[in-house]
Amino acid sequence: MTEDTDDKATDGKALTRRALLVGLGAAGGAGAMYAAMGALGLAPDRQADDYTPPQRSDFTLRGRGAASVVILGAGVAGLAVAYELGKAGYDCTILEARDRIGGRSLTIRGGDRLPELSGETQQARFGEGIYFNAGPARIAQWMLTLDYCRELGVPIEPFVNDNASAYVYNTGMKAPVRARTARADIYGYVSELLAKATNAGALDRRLTPGDKELLLDFLSEFGDIGKSYTYDGSERRGYRVEPGVSAPVPLGPPPPLQEVLRYGLGRTIAFPFGYEQAMPMFQPVGGMDSLARRLADAVGRDKIRTSVEVKKITNLPDGVQIEHTGGSTKAQYCVAAMPPHILARIPGNLGTQVVSALATPKPVSGGKIGLEYRRRWWETDDRIYGGITETDMDISHIWYPSYGFHGSRGLVVGYYNLGDDADAYARLTHAERESRALRQGVRIHGDKYRTELLSSVSIAWRRQPHIEGAWVSWPSFEAPFRLLQQPAGRVYFAGDWLTHLIAWQAGALESARKVVTQLHTRVVKEN
Amino acid sequence: MTEDTDDKATDGKALTRRALLVGLGAAGGAGAMYAAMGALGLAPDRQADDYTPPQRSDFTLRGRGAASVVILGAGVAGLAVAYELGKAGYDCTILEARDRIGGRSLTIRGGDRLPELSGETQQARFGEGIYFNAGPARIAQWMLTLDYCRELGVPIEPFVNDNASAYVYNTGMKAPVRARTARADIYGYVSELLAKATNAGALDRRLTPGDKELLLDFLSEFGDIGKSYTYDGSERRGYRVEPGVSAPVPLGPPPPLQEVLRYGLGRTIAFPFGYEQAMPMFQPVGGMDSLARRLADAVGRDKIRTSVEVKKITNLPDGVQIEHTGGSTKAQYCVAAMPPHILARIPGNLGTQVVSALATPKPVSGGKIGLEYRRRWWETDDRIYGGITETDMDISHIWYPSYGFHGSRGLVVGYYNLGDDADAYARLTHAERESRALRQGVRIHGDKYRTELLSSVSIAWRRQPHIEGAWVSWPSFEAPFRLLQQPAGRVYFAGDWLTHLIAWQAGALESARKVVTQLHTRVVKEN
Repeated sequence: MTEDTDDKATDGKALTRRALLVGLGAAGGAGAMYAAMGALGLAPDRQADDYTPPQRSDFTLRGRGAASVVILGAGVAGLAVAYELGKAGYDCTILEARDRIGGRSLTIRGGDRLPELSGETQQARFGEGIYFNAGPARIAQWMLTLDYCRELGVPIEPFVNDNASAYVYNTGMKAPVRARTARADIYGYVSELLAKATNAGALDRRLTPGDKELLLDFLSEFGDIGKSYTYDGSERRGYRVEPGVSAPVPLGPPPPLQEVLRYGLGRTIAFPFGYEQAMPMFQPVGGMDSLARRLADAVGRDKIRTSVEVKKITNLPDGVQIEHTGGSTKAQYCVAAMPPHILARIPGNLGTQVVSALATPKPVSGGKIGLEYRRRWWETDDRIYGGITETDMDISHIWYPSYGFHGSRGLVVGYYNLGDDADAYARLTHAERESRALRQGVRIHGDKYRTELLSSVSIAWRRQPHIEGAWVSWPSFEAPFRLLQQPAGRVYFAGDWLTHLIAWQAGALESARKVVTQLHTRVVKEN
Repeated sequence: MTEDTDDKATDGKALTRRALLVGLGAAGGAGAMYAAMGALGLAPDRQADDYTPPQRSDFTLRGRGAASVVILGAGVAGLAVAYELGKAGYDCTILEARDRIGGRSLTIRGGDRLPELSGETQQARFGEGIYFNAGPARIAQWMLTLDYCRELGVPIEPFVNDNASAYVYNTGMKAPVRARTARADIYGYVSELLAKATNAGALDRRLTPGDKELLLDFLSEFGDIGKSYTYDGSERRGYRVEPGVSAPVPLGPPPPLQEVLRYGLGRTIAFPFGYEQAMPMFQPVGGMDSLARRLADAVGRDKIRTSVEVKKITNLPDGVQIEHTGGSTKAQYCVAAMPPHILARIPGNLGTQVVSALATPKPVSGGKIGLEYRRRWWETDDRIYGGITETDMDISHIWYPSYGFHGSRGLVVGYYNLGDDADAYARLTHAERESRALRQGVRIHGDKYRTELLSSVSIAWRRQPHIEGAWVSWPSFEAPFRLLQQPAGRVYFAGDWLTHLIAWQAGALESARKVVTQLHTRVVKEN
């Protein structure tokens, strides 16, 4: 049975991750990628593995490469490069400036220290089992990240990215409103307005009578407006008394249309419609850094040197020389998997065009705070199990945890903000950040938001040593972006910043696969 | 710390499950229930428990009752009655006609036998770790079921009730379409139509210029139609080539409005807007019967007698006499927690009015099939991790599992249908049901839907001995429903069918709490 399973998983016809995303039955569409891999001799072999998980990936470098490679950065991109090259026989060394692996894939647990460039160092006091994903925290179903979780046996669980019971609290609102209530109201009114316009003949030039009937049927259900085409509330809003032995009592009539329009719900409601954010999403069990850790284990911890800062990168005719903390390392090739704005500052001979390209994308500010509570009041009192409260206050979001349901303590993300809001928090001490986040959270959840707090840790990504940004933003995906897809001599570049999946681990993994393919093709050709 | 937590959980102010559902800060609203409990002496005491979980419930019978109670039926209602009465000191005995506890809360695993009234008996051949929730399978955040999971230490995990990557396949469609694509298209067109009607002045009598602007802002984001107010596709539809190192290539232009209207999306799209079905939902880890099992353990397995069919129920002046398989049992009180249509057939002296009331609700047909596959092709090939494909074929739904992600085998629910569709499948042999379900599934997923199958089990609830229905439907919640909320002599009635949460375990639990409160009040008063 198991061999059979694996056989199928590695059968050419099953190499269909992308192909099947294209559409039903379009397996032939594996097209470009598979053909390219075949041409490179990269098509997966059929060697049977043992019982799954972990399962084989749809990516394998065919043939062996004996070259030595020095990889700069033990973030997800660097680790994945070492992992894939290692499978093909390369001798890899990773140099990491920080004292831990994972880069921005950073999960903070009790006892962890978090220094900032400002000089302040926080020490996490979280209890057993509590963790804070300070960087990436969710994975979409279609992302390569899940393939690596599968391949490496990193268990996953759903991440609640949208919760009908969470709140929306924007400036236009008198008080926080449950997402379900806000949605029911705006969908109800939108349906009513369109149904009435339709019935009044306003769309007669666009719609046949048959179309109008189908549209009205849709609106009737979409807005729960029945056949009166008037929105006067819906059980979808929620109940004042829930259904039980007694009949439920609805929440009451909705606010007037004008008030609901002032809520400013567009962004909030559309958020989970995005291809990257649609439900369900996933997370590794036990913390996002599980993937980086498992990659590091697979690479071999002895091949990773932490607290080693790169001082100079020199392309030589036969290799690359890296000067770094405590010495220098020479290898036949180098993969620089560091943030581009940091890399741009490192002396060497990459050339002015390359350095200028590296300096083109600009770091983006982002910050989060993890608030540890002594009890899970959002579950017991508010009946919110995971998900996100959305607000236009400068905390932007409150995330409720998608793990540890019904446990004793729990960790809420008290802000996750970007740009100016993140900069404003970054300028504060940790104590001030906590205080500001609590003040806003209290407006949504009341005093318990402050009184039940046990401890907290905040991160300001622009102030993280050797990272200095949540991610980067390119002015365009033109010449500089394209230039860095090619090696500068024997130095290759990898990272989410070299993809159209910036800020996602999947970007780092896509880039890693592209770079190892490029490098391996060269090595195979030169040997 | 822990004592502190528990203190809070049992503090009067924290008795707020329902209160907080009423709305923010409306804790005073606990009103009716809490006042009633206080009057009955049921307010929770402050005795400190050990480390959580399990955590104390917000429900406790205060004071002890030494009466004996015979409970008919070891479904969730009967078990919860015995559990709550047991905590207050009652001597409970449960008689269960089936050979296992749980009633409709039935999880089928490898080795389980499933007899049907038709005479056919299926034997499940599922592999290790594979289970099939043949009855209830999901829990909403607000439901009492979660409180019992918390109290009893039954671990929970998210149940994916809606997946943007699953398919919709209705008669009006040429081929299955991803839910995300269908939603993007109908939201896009609805937004375009309403925006154009608004701009054409069709809503001028209803909307001020300021309202119009707010509405257009909303529609721009809701439908992803920008400021042209024209829907010509959206990245929300999905990609032909996903974002990676290369730029993504969108799926292409949407079908014309007329085609999208013919999809008949109203019901499908509105389904997760319902109060009972909104995401996220939850399931017990390892199978829905975990709750019933844990309740049975807490009650004491020695107090539960299975394969004991009730033959006669007699109210006596000082108790209730139950004649049953192998003898008779007398107790001071009885709680009949059986399906009403079965109970109505049992001889005794409940009286014609009560028997007529019991015969009033009609059983509803429902069926499911669990299809075990040798590999999780929906994850690897289709990138669907849990969730539901919706169709208007007679299978109605295909459920992908919300457990065992990335494992080897997996179990898909190949149909979950009601009414006439369920009756049609019920009339078939299991082999015929499987064959019919596969034929339809192949239209959505292709041949692998058939070729990767390992085994299956189907259930037709109308044909389940001693149950004979998925749930019941009342013509109205009037006199007969109200009559059965009161005891007939010393016989009380409990079950989801006596609530406004029919077909949900939460209904059984709500009913159980109400009955034990009623019974205990009487016992305390009479002593």
